[in-house]
Amino acid sequence: MSYHSHIVQVYYEDTDLSGVVYHANYLKYFERAREHILGPEKLVKLWEEDGLGFVVYKCELTFREGAKLGDILEIRTRVRPESAYRAIFEQNVYRQGSDKPMVEGMVQLVCVDSDQTLVVLPDEVTALG
Amino acid sequence: MSYHSHIVQVYYEDTDLSGVVYHANYLKYFERAREHILGPEKLVKLWEEDGLGFVVYKCELTFREGAKLGDILEIRTRVRPESAYRAIFEQNVYRQGSDKPMVEGMVQLVCVDSDQTLVVLPDEVTALG
Amino acid sequence: MSYHSHIVQVYYEDTDLSGVVYHANYLKYFERAREHILGPEKLVKLWEEDGLGFVVYKCELTFREGAKLGDILEIRTRVRPESAYRAIFEQNVYRQGSDKPMVEGMVQLVCVDSDQTLVVLPDEVTALG
Amino acid sequence: MSYHSHIVQVYYEDTDLSGVVYHANYLKYFERAREHILGPEKLVKLWEEDGLGFVVYKCELTFREGAKLGDILEIRTRVRPESAYRAIFEQNVYRQGSDKPMVEGMVQLVCVDSDQTLVVLPDEVTALG
Repeated sequence: MSYHSHIVQVYYEDTDLSGVVYHANYLKYFERAREHILGPEKLVKLWEEDGLGFVVYKCELTFREGAKLGDILEIRTRVRPESAYRAIFEQNVYRQGSDKPMVEGMVQLVCVDSDQTLVVLPDEVTALG
Repeated sequence: MSYHSHIVQVYYEDTDLSGVVYHANYLKYFERAREHILGPEKLVKLWEEDGLGFVVYKCELTFREGAKLGDILEIRTRVRPESAYRAIFEQNVYRQGSDKPMVEGMVQLVCVDSDQTLVVLPDEVTALG
Repeated sequence: MSYHSHIVQVYYEDTDLSGVVYHANYLKYFERAREHILGPEKLVKLWEEDGLGFVVYKCELTFREGAKLGDILEIRTRVRPESAYRAIFEQNVYRQGSDKPMVEGMVQLVCVDSDQTLVVLPDEVTALG
Repeated sequence: MSYHSHIVQVYYEDTDLSGVVYHANYLKYFERAREHILGPEKLVKLWEEDGLGFVVYKCELTFREGAKLGDILEIRTRVRPESAYRAIFEQNVYRQGSDKPMVEGMVQLVCVDSDQTLVVLPDEVTALG
């Protein structure tokens, strides 16, 4: 199965006093990668015209190595639609040029309307798998 | 002129690799203090019922000393309504128990409706001065 | 088993355009609660004198309901030392006064020295269980 | 005087419930742009080998228009060394393809050693003007 690749640079804002990236920020990196997979224009259109938004239902992260200031990271994402309502994103972080994962993640996404009611995933997502 | 006092604790999330609070985070501390001055319930009511929100128009910050993990900070805020449309918040950061400012700030706030059009400040704000 | 309780207020900074708290921010809330359990002074002492820091090794989150601006949240934490090297924190988010979890979390923590080498957890942590 | 250009995409993480970018985040955008001007490798080298870091001493921001999810922003930076110890960065935010500033900023930077003592700016910075 192929993957989607997204590059992230580590800036001062991402680190904490321990000198590595603050753990919660990897969820931001994962989310940026997911936005690029669907495309920001499509995301905005779904939100503004249809009132549809994506919501993280579950996530799991395993941290193996901390990324540092100036690191160029690659987020590799594989999408696996689980049902009409739920898609699973396997998202790992690598230092660019390496195949050893620094962080391994799994994010389950659902889609909700403006009443926060669960709706069927848009075709664009189910087509990703 | 008296001031409003708000206490903030410095957590891991607030620091960067230099070991002190990341500079942009003081704007978050200032904003938390301002939310407490008006009251979160009032803020939510203005937003949900009237579509009114507060927007920072200008800010100035001078950083004299960096706060560290575990520091208990006091944000002292003085409000000065400038006109019917604009309020000025003078907001300084102190280490609790000290009178030597670590960060000195000035934030100008305006109020906009749901079309992002400038509206007269609510009475609750003009009454603060 | 009793739990540790930590109160968090939801500010503007915590929300995203969907109107609820951005998912990654719950990891920040959990971390603040953990800092209060051990005590910031103790954390700083371990870091500055012994070069010891806590690192999240794994985490799992399930998001059931989004918190909104002005919500007062209670983070309930139960600690379970798993081995000499690893402690498990079960951390859930509730709207204050409610017993229905909005977010359920599990965070595994380890302790590393200044070389990022795994070390035995300090007694203060193993004593928490 | 020519300027340095840095592109930033607006993600979910950057917005707040008002639907536009949270004001403090523009300081992050400015800092990313500054890191690219000097180069992350150079920054890391100064920090790790010489214990030198850059610190924001003052900043001023004027917010004219809020950026939205999916916006591609251009940060234009002009550097003006003010003295041997202080450099001024004029940093404005534009929607890509437009010449109308959304946010106008000024950031004064100084350089400190590992004791937080002010030191002369590295040649690489004074050469930027």
